[in-house]
Amino acid sequence: MASQSKLKILNDPIYGFITVPSDRIFKIIEHPYFQRLRRISQMGLSYLVYPGAHHTRFHHALGCVHLMQKAVRVLRYKGVEISAKEEEALLIAILMHDIGHGPFSHAMEHTLVEGVDHESISLLFMQDLNGKFNQSLTLAIDIFKGSYNRKFMNQLISSQLDMDRLDYLKRDSFYTGAVEGNINSERLITMLNVVDDQLVIEEKGIYSVEKFLIGRRLMYWQVYLHKTSLVAEQLIIRVLKRAKELISEGKELHCSTALSFFLNNPVTLENFDAKTLEMFARLDDNDVISAMKEWMHCEDFVLKNLCEMIINRDLLKVKIKKKKPSAEKMEERSLALQKKYGISEHEASYFVFDGKIENQAYKREKDNIHILHKNGKISDVVKVSDQFNLKALTNTVTKYYMCYPKVKD
Amino acid sequence: MASQSKLKILNDPIYGFITVPSDRIFKIIEHPYFQRLRRISQMGLSYLVYPGAHHTRFHHALGCVHLMQKAVRVLRYKGVEISAKEEEALLIAILMHDIGHGPFSHAMEHTLVEGVDHESISLLFMQDLNGKFNQSLTLAIDIFKGSYNRKFMNQLISSQLDMDRLDYLKRDSFYTGAVEGNINSERLITMLNVVDDQLVIEEKGIYSVEKFLIGRRLMYWQVYLHKTSLVAEQLIIRVLKRAKELISEGKELHCSTALSFFLNNPVTLENFDAKTLEMFARLDDNDVISAMKEWMHCEDFVLKNLCEMIINRDLLKVKIKKKKPSAEKMEERSLALQKKYGISEHEASYFVFDGKIENQAYKREKDNIHILHKNGKISDVVKVSDQFNLKALTNTVTKYYMCYPKVKD
Amino acid sequence: MASQSKLKILNDPIYGFITVPSDRIFKIIEHPYFQRLRRISQMGLSYLVYPGAHHTRFHHALGCVHLMQKAVRVLRYKGVEISAKEEEALLIAILMHDIGHGPFSHAMEHTLVEGVDHESISLLFMQDLNGKFNQSLTLAIDIFKGSYNRKFMNQLISSQLDMDRLDYLKRDSFYTGAVEGNINSERLITMLNVVDDQLVIEEKGIYSVEKFLIGRRLMYWQVYLHKTSLVAEQLIIRVLKRAKELISEGKELHCSTALSFFLNNPVTLENFDAKTLEMFARLDDNDVISAMKEWMHCEDFVLKNLCEMIINRDLLKVKIKKKKPSAEKMEERSLALQKKYGISEHEASYFVFDGKIENQAYKREKDNIHILHKNGKISDVVKVSDQFNLKALTNTVTKYYMCYPKVKD
Amino acid sequence: MASQSKLKILNDPIYGFITVPSDRIFKIIEHPYFQRLRRISQMGLSYLVYPGAHHTRFHHALGCVHLMQKAVRVLRYKGVEISAKEEEALLIAILMHDIGHGPFSHAMEHTLVEGVDHESISLLFMQDLNGKFNQSLTLAIDIFKGSYNRKFMNQLISSQLDMDRLDYLKRDSFYTGAVEGNINSERLITMLNVVDDQLVIEEKGIYSVEKFLIGRRLMYWQVYLHKTSLVAEQLIIRVLKRAKELISEGKELHCSTALSFFLNNPVTLENFDAKTLEMFARLDDNDVISAMKEWMHCEDFVLKNLCEMIINRDLLKVKIKKKKPSAEKMEERSLALQKKYGISEHEASYFVFDGKIENQAYKREKDNIHILHKNGKISDVVKVSDQFNLKALTNTVTKYYMCYPKVKD
Repeated sequence: MASQSKLKILNDPIYGFITVPSDRIFKIIEHPYFQRLRRISQMGLSYLVYPGAHHTRFHHALGCVHLMQKAVRVLRYKGVEISAKEEEALLIAILMHDIGHGPFSHAMEHTLVEGVDHESISLLFMQDLNGKFNQSLTLAIDIFKGSYNRKFMNQLISSQLDMDRLDYLKRDSFYTGAVEGNINSERLITMLNVVDDQLVIEEKGIYSVEKFLIGRRLMYWQVYLHKTSLVAEQLIIRVLKRAKELISEGKELHCSTALSFFLNNPVTLENFDAKTLEMFARLDDNDVISAMKEWMHCEDFVLKNLCEMIINRDLLKVKIKKKKPSAEKMEERSLALQKKYGISEHEASYFVFDGKIENQAYKREKDNIHILHKNGKISDVVKVSDQFNLKALTNTVTKYYMCYPKVKD
Repeated sequence: MASQSKLKILNDPIYGFITVPSDRIFKIIEHPYFQRLRRISQMGLSYLVYPGAHHTRFHHALGCVHLMQKAVRVLRYKGVEISAKEEEALLIAILMHDIGHGPFSHAMEHTLVEGVDHESISLLFMQDLNGKFNQSLTLAIDIFKGSYNRKFMNQLISSQLDMDRLDYLKRDSFYTGAVEGNINSERLITMLNVVDDQLVIEEKGIYSVEKFLIGRRLMYWQVYLHKTSLVAEQLIIRVLKRAKELISEGKELHCSTALSFFLNNPVTLENFDAKTLEMFARLDDNDVISAMKEWMHCEDFVLKNLCEMIINRDLLKVKIKKKKPSAEKMEERSLALQKKYGISEHEASYFVFDGKIENQAYKREKDNIHILHKNGKISDVVKVSDQFNLKALTNTVTKYYMCYPKVKD
Repeated sequence: MASQSKLKILNDPIYGFITVPSDRIFKIIEHPYFQRLRRISQMGLSYLVYPGAHHTRFHHALGCVHLMQKAVRVLRYKGVEISAKEEEALLIAILMHDIGHGPFSHAMEHTLVEGVDHESISLLFMQDLNGKFNQSLTLAIDIFKGSYNRKFMNQLISSQLDMDRLDYLKRDSFYTGAVEGNINSERLITMLNVVDDQLVIEEKGIYSVEKFLIGRRLMYWQVYLHKTSLVAEQLIIRVLKRAKELISEGKELHCSTALSFFLNNPVTLENFDAKTLEMFARLDDNDVISAMKEWMHCEDFVLKNLCEMIINRDLLKVKIKKKKPSAEKMEERSLALQKKYGISEHEASYFVFDGKIENQAYKREKDNIHILHKNGKISDVVKVSDQFNLKALTNTVTKYYMCYPKVKD
Repeated sequence: MASQSKLKILNDPIYGFITVPSDRIFKIIEHPYFQRLRRISQMGLSYLVYPGAHHTRFHHALGCVHLMQKAVRVLRYKGVEISAKEEEALLIAILMHDIGHGPFSHAMEHTLVEGVDHESISLLFMQDLNGKFNQSLTLAIDIFKGSYNRKFMNQLISSQLDMDRLDYLKRDSFYTGAVEGNINSERLITMLNVVDDQLVIEEKGIYSVEKFLIGRRLMYWQVYLHKTSLVAEQLIIRVLKRAKELISEGKELHCSTALSFFLNNPVTLENFDAKTLEMFARLDDNDVISAMKEWMHCEDFVLKNLCEMIINRDLLKVKIKKKKPSAEKMEERSLALQKKYGISEHEASYFVFDGKIENQAYKREKDNIHILHKNGKISDVVKVSDQFNLKALTNTVTKYYMCYPKVKD
């Protein structure tokens, strides 16, 4: 007789169900390091544009595990041998690949943990957990780092067609309601194969790959780089910069212990010790939002106004152009602002600024997507797609944004 | 190196993809007996009410195969041993369980093959194919018939919670757009288990079972027994009866060879020989529809009008009541019709008639749905569902319909 | 020539798009009072069970506006006169009906604003905004309060089949992935009509109403009263109670200005002045979560442990039974805990407790759902549904829960 | 008091509901000419590849009516005046735009009604019905023909972004399960506007237009020109050609009255009289399929085999290449076949043949898609899409297919 099932099942609006296939994986999920991802939004402040976009990094990580299970099943079906141990390692690696993300990650990488990318912090978390889990995560870490001898396993974790992208593009499209960016992750996985230790897509999947690249490009320009999200992210960067500035000048700012730690201590990869990791593990969206909610009542003109803009969603005006805005125009705006509020040029620079955004839908020089032809040959997807100029997608598109205050009476 | 995949994949709007997991199964699908199901609508004339309901028995059978693969995977995961041979047999059995359906099956069972049910004909087809496939379908046939020693396998094919129902309720709900009948087949399957060779649902699935029973009841009353479908089916029965009647009187009616065979030869289970099976295999929706399209131009008042009603969707008026309509009222209507068109009482009976419909959402005496409690005990779903009167669903609900011509000027 | 559209459109994963049909409504949405709802989760801590359930009260309110637009369109189509002014008032009323919710609303109503329900606070917000919007919200407020002479308008805002329920049941089902609770809101709206100033459902919608009631009941027992959500909510109540207790004893607890205000000042409907409203408007999920994140490092055994349980999702054990647990059993558990940690009976009571939950799927004595028959008669839905024991749904179902610490080594 | 609703509502799996907004439109739908579309598949034999693709032209026409209602609502909202009379005419025009389709329309246009396109036949049906409906369809006909003075109305019926395409691409994608071709029809409609009597898309809809063009291209190459559909369609053309040939030689072939009429009488637009129209109105998929089912038992080697191939889905082998196949290779195959079966070169040509397929995703010279910029300027979508080489989509892509029998033992 079969015993009552211990299969852990989580509801997921996208895939229906996500199963957690082993006790070890379940225990990693239960760990506070991982539970913390429940409090970190996958898309930062994008919910200011897309009110449905409140899904978390926790949920995305589980979605990746779901897709990885599918991928393993498909590859085995096609004769690619993957041992039970390798399978679990693949699942653990993808589960933890983003564990190093902090709140509003891109903004943080410019401020609180300047110069330390989230992949490095993910690795620190993994190594720390490896100790706590009796070194049973070593293979997962090797796959994650790309040091395991079967390269295709790392490609499942990190490449232009990895489980990470296949989940987040689908998930972000779903929760934003930007259905044009929806990609057919499950179909793409069905087309996967491995040749010479390299992940490939079978020829019949060529249209799905094209659609994937187009969808991805669309998500970038329409969603991730949406001008409102962009200005919100720029503002949050400036909030954290200003806070550090004020603190370095000796001002006192009310905020959480963890956030305070990072505002007061410059963090580098070199000095990222156990204490830093512990503090980092306490940091999530709530710390930053709560701080801004307090700071919008503080006395500093700059900080107060930046926080109000975000919290009340009364953002700067933003324009996106093909050309860099003229320096004169920007200076003119800055001067007007300085005059109006009696603030310095430096203070005005928090409200009048410009910058560059760029995106390349398909990076040809790196991690190319390979197509496996029926005759066994392999070639780059750009070459295969004959009817359609996929080459256009390999160009880097550059745009410029400028932000400045709305004129109010 | 893995060779290019031979995995057969079919697109399905409901499940995304259906994979055909073995060559033998693929060959059965390719056989003309099975291809014929592409030309038999799953829901008969229901498309007259639900314009999307044109899905076929072919598609449903594939959907069942998909769900059975899921069920096998879930049960194995929970420790139920199912050999590769048993798995294939289960898939073949569910693939072919409905192969004996003819066009407008319920109507046919009252007319062309009176008294021969489609299960019996399915078995005839299976046995015939078993010969053509080197006796490799024997185990599938045993499971289908319930003679295999592992009873739960038959329950996966035929019980109140079998893969057949789990697919057709979902599929019919999907294609009709009657979303209220949508059931969560995949969740229910996740809850399956086997105890003492008996299929059970784990306790946490109790709400899903309730929802399934409610959804099923709703599909019956709102869709399958929809008054327009009902009258259309009654009319098609009468078309075939009248055609047989006219032929028995020596009239000539233009129709296909296969339909002609069944109109001219009374078929019973006893005389259902190879020739009959061959003719049956040639019969599909096109034969019946095409015949009606010709007959609507024939000279017989009754047949002509019945056919016109269906083809032009200008049906009889139909009422559904809780009480049996009074014989007087019906006779009155018949007399008026006889008088108006100068037809006999017998002829009028094709247009003025009444009948009974009944449905029982949950049949308690047979194939009960068993719930497996966390403590290992097993009980009937009706007893478990404490907050809710599932007992009400065990009552047989009876209604009466009456049909008669619309009054036109 | 038509000018470039000013139609505001918001993406919604459920309805596709939500349009904001007037400038006034758009300005209300832009107000900080309303923007604050972006930071209040619709389902409190349910995301601990359903990782997708991070949708906000902001999004729900917009969904209600969408459904109300549909309802107005349907009713007008059927000849119910609704003026442009009434339409706008209906939209404003439903937009703001939940604006008085605080973070983890049900928990708050037992602690921070004990005895002040969110409807009363909604009204305070509306009245405040009415001042800021030149008294243009008066009609909306009258409809909301039920004092407008056309009663059916209030029923669209607040009854057993109002736009509120039609959105939140659908939305909660969608985001949790508990698809069994999915209801066909748009179909139900199509069936709406008004007779004698009373909202009714046309007869053909009877199955949809049944399905709605079943779905709603399922959402209660499977989702809203899920044992894990239940224990999490009980814990958050105890966190806030303990914090008030400690503060009243003179302990200092680090938290936000707004939360501090409510922990220090007993609030009643009578003393709910402008200052209180302003502080309430600053309160959202972040204040509570951030406080718990700090408090889990505090020195009080009770508060520290309660906060850890929630933040790390390492909750109390919870059982749900049909009978009230025996007082002896509970006391035994309390004593064991007191002994193990050397804490008082009072302190132990934060970890060992029991309670009652009840739900009635259809409240017959109040706001009955009325069915409009084809012959013009109107009757209660329970009477109409003949085949099915809807009466069972009118019973109040009562269950008991008990919570206590997991036994760890 | 509002009377019980007369609003006709049809379930639709895609849009949820389709409402029929006027009695006149409902009566057109009830007419046998229109009911006939229930028996004509939208996608011909594509169900041989995509088992879900059994949706009909009837359903598509209703879908178009649904989208047109949306378009009218959006345009009016933006200030484009559309009278009630014009609205009804638009709905009627789109409802009937495809009424002239016959069974397997593309095949027919090469055989049974050689040189008469379905638009011309649609117009004949409309004119006929105009007589039957007291000339109340005149405005609809003028809009359909493009002779009404408001040009944008014709563009809603027939242009690169008309309601026809917006429905069929979405519908075909839905029913085939080829989700990559899914387009966001409702979003595109929201972006519509009219400037200088010309349909335009507002600038913010640029990504949706791109996605639409990509999706459309994908549907062509992956679905409409799928090699299996292609060979099936080529076979059905040859079945009808062979049948005409045999009949012209005096052979007798069993088939329906209507099909017989077209096999025996050469039809041109000039001789398309009332009798021809009546016969055409009797023709649907059943006539062709039923004929093939009989003919597969006939004596002619060519016809018998062609019919068997389609009915049993045992098709010719087909290859699609970028280059035209060599004449020698094709002749070699033909000779082998002639020898094997002792058939003539002419007979063999029914089984060994090649041809050309081409598609242009965006036709720049005709019915361009115009983008309305925020500054009021209008330009072609190809020029606007700066990051992306939409120009590539204006190229005509040409491919070649060749078909020949499978080699069997």
